[in-house]
Amino acid sequence: MTAPGAVEAAMRLAIAQAQRVKGTTYPNPPVGAVILSPEGEVAGVGATEPTGGPHAEVVALRDAGERAAGGTAVVTLEPCNHHGRTPPCVGALIEAGVAAVVYAVADPNPVAAGGAGRLHEAGIAVTDGVGAEAVASGPLREWLHKQRTGRPHVTWKFATSVDGRSAAADGSSQWITSDAARADVHRRRAAADAIVVGTGTVFADNPTLTARLPDGALAERQPLRVVVGKREISSEASVLNDDSRTMVIRTHDPHEVIRALSDRTDVVVEGGPTLAGAFLRAGVIDRILAYVAPILLGGPITAVDDVGVPSIARALRWRYDSVEPLGPDVLLSLIPG
Amino acid sequence: MTAPGAVEAAMRLAIAQAQRVKGTTYPNPPVGAVILSPEGEVAGVGATEPTGGPHAEVVALRDAGERAAGGTAVVTLEPCNHHGRTPPCVGALIEAGVAAVVYAVADPNPVAAGGAGRLHEAGIAVTDGVGAEAVASGPLREWLHKQRTGRPHVTWKFATSVDGRSAAADGSSQWITSDAARADVHRRRAAADAIVVGTGTVFADNPTLTARLPDGALAERQPLRVVVGKREISSEASVLNDDSRTMVIRTHDPHEVIRALSDRTDVVVEGGPTLAGAFLRAGVIDRILAYVAPILLGGPITAVDDVGVPSIARALRWRYDSVEPLGPDVLLSLIPG
Repeated sequence: MTAPGAVEAAMRLAIAQAQRVKGTTYPNPPVGAVILSPEGEVAGVGATEPTGGPHAEVVALRDAGERAAGGTAVVTLEPCNHHGRTPPCVGALIEAGVAAVVYAVADPNPVAAGGAGRLHEAGIAVTDGVGAEAVASGPLREWLHKQRTGRPHVTWKFATSVDGRSAAADGSSQWITSDAARADVHRRRAAADAIVVGTGTVFADNPTLTARLPDGALAERQPLRVVVGKREISSEASVLNDDSRTMVIRTHDPHEVIRALSDRTDVVVEGGPTLAGAFLRAGVIDRILAYVAPILLGGPITAVDDVGVPSIARALRWRYDSVEPLGPDVLLSLIPG
Repeated sequence: MTAPGAVEAAMRLAIAQAQRVKGTTYPNPPVGAVILSPEGEVAGVGATEPTGGPHAEVVALRDAGERAAGGTAVVTLEPCNHHGRTPPCVGALIEAGVAAVVYAVADPNPVAAGGAGRLHEAGIAVTDGVGAEAVASGPLREWLHKQRTGRPHVTWKFATSVDGRSAAADGSSQWITSDAARADVHRRRAAADAIVVGTGTVFADNPTLTARLPDGALAERQPLRVVVGKREISSEASVLNDDSRTMVIRTHDPHEVIRALSDRTDVVVEGGPTLAGAFLRAGVIDRILAYVAPILLGGPITAVDDVGVPSIARALRWRYDSVEPLGPDVLLSLIPG
């Protein structure tokens, strides 16, 4: 028998698997799966493979082999019932003879959905909602947003001193946050589909906007680099180098930027105070990640300028969805209130 | 026998007792004590009583009565060996027949110290250092600072949006933070010896600067209100009302303010951007408490202005000593790096 807590532990493992492949599975969602043997032991583990490759359930079933029969499949997303580039996962689960399927989040995609129903018809016990919040706010956050709204999920990321400055009075800003915070930024860049900055940031900092590993090497996967604004940037700008592709969008309208990126899922805005203000005023930010260093800078250079708030009654109200230490810094994650 | 962990649990209880009386024990330190019976059960609990009253050990011993004999006294500070307004605590512990004394922090005061030695000579087992960090950064933080430096401990407290603003563009700031954060501020005011603001804050907000209970009533103990600056404030200003005493210091020099408050232990600076900048530039802030609301305000009014940092290399570097949620807000506590 499966011990109490074994399914929850398997879901945590499945979530970690899904998190690992975030950004690599387009257009499939990043999903994780764990197969428990009839005795409740972890028999197989898997995550969605890159485009055209097998889904998480199939990878985990292969890993489990014959130990899947009579066991439990624990998956972060409802198994698909849809024959795309790969056969539907429900077929593979039925064929493997699992006795039960537990998943976190129902598939909102009408083409792929219906998996739970078909499993049930095949006599398999189906449980949903286990770990649902952790999955919906974690590995599937951006994908679910895209499914629901048709628009990419937009994160505004900024590094700041505890007094809200993104640079010292003379404009110097390397480095406000720690190695640990920067490594986290690079991990998130490697999982993102696009990184957006304004021409102001290109002029001020000449960033490469690549995802790098702690040793400085380029990460295997690079996001699209997007430069927004009407000023002409130099052809020598680092953001135009060969490390990744770059899109230049000659507009000041955040909605136009989002439309130009409508085939993307996970967009990260790393722009300076002006660009961030424009995106916040336009109401197109879905999440804020503030890397707050325990330093004070004072002076005129703030992380964001005008956000369109004349008085406290009209403040942009968000809520913290996580607060975590990151080396000497703190990472505040905020979602709309 | 005393069960494993019982002493640590008793120390946590002693710390909570000490925290409760913080601000009420001047000139004595706020100390907590717990007496464990020979069987390891909590037999008595106590905290330092107001000036002239008994010390924590004596209160806890009275509470324990005969169950103290052969038991363990757990105290946040080394028991005193000094006959002041009350007889020394070591005498009371010896007389009660305790078998062991455990304390967190040694007494740095040469007049009162020597308690551990005398207990040892009396054949009592003495252990120090249990819970030392929690006590030194908690109930005894300000008192230990005063003992060590001769100066009051100065906390800069501010409420801010996540983008570092202390008010919206039109100056409105009520309320940036939540009821929970404001209640915490009032609890800390009630424990503080003095609250310092600049004349700018008096003109802008006309605060009363009193410590209030959640129902709006005045707390039993009120800190001294201190107004710093050269501008004349109106005799009608709320800060001059009868709810507490008020000191007006006509200077812009933070060192002069600290000197004027040299007989105090726990000073809280609640001033606006100019006063906070002056205190930070002068290097007289010992702790920063930032109540960070999950809102964005943008605009020109920041929580602090010039802190004397021209470039990132000269940033004022602190470190987080705690990060805790407070209702919908986050309280960041920073100490010098």
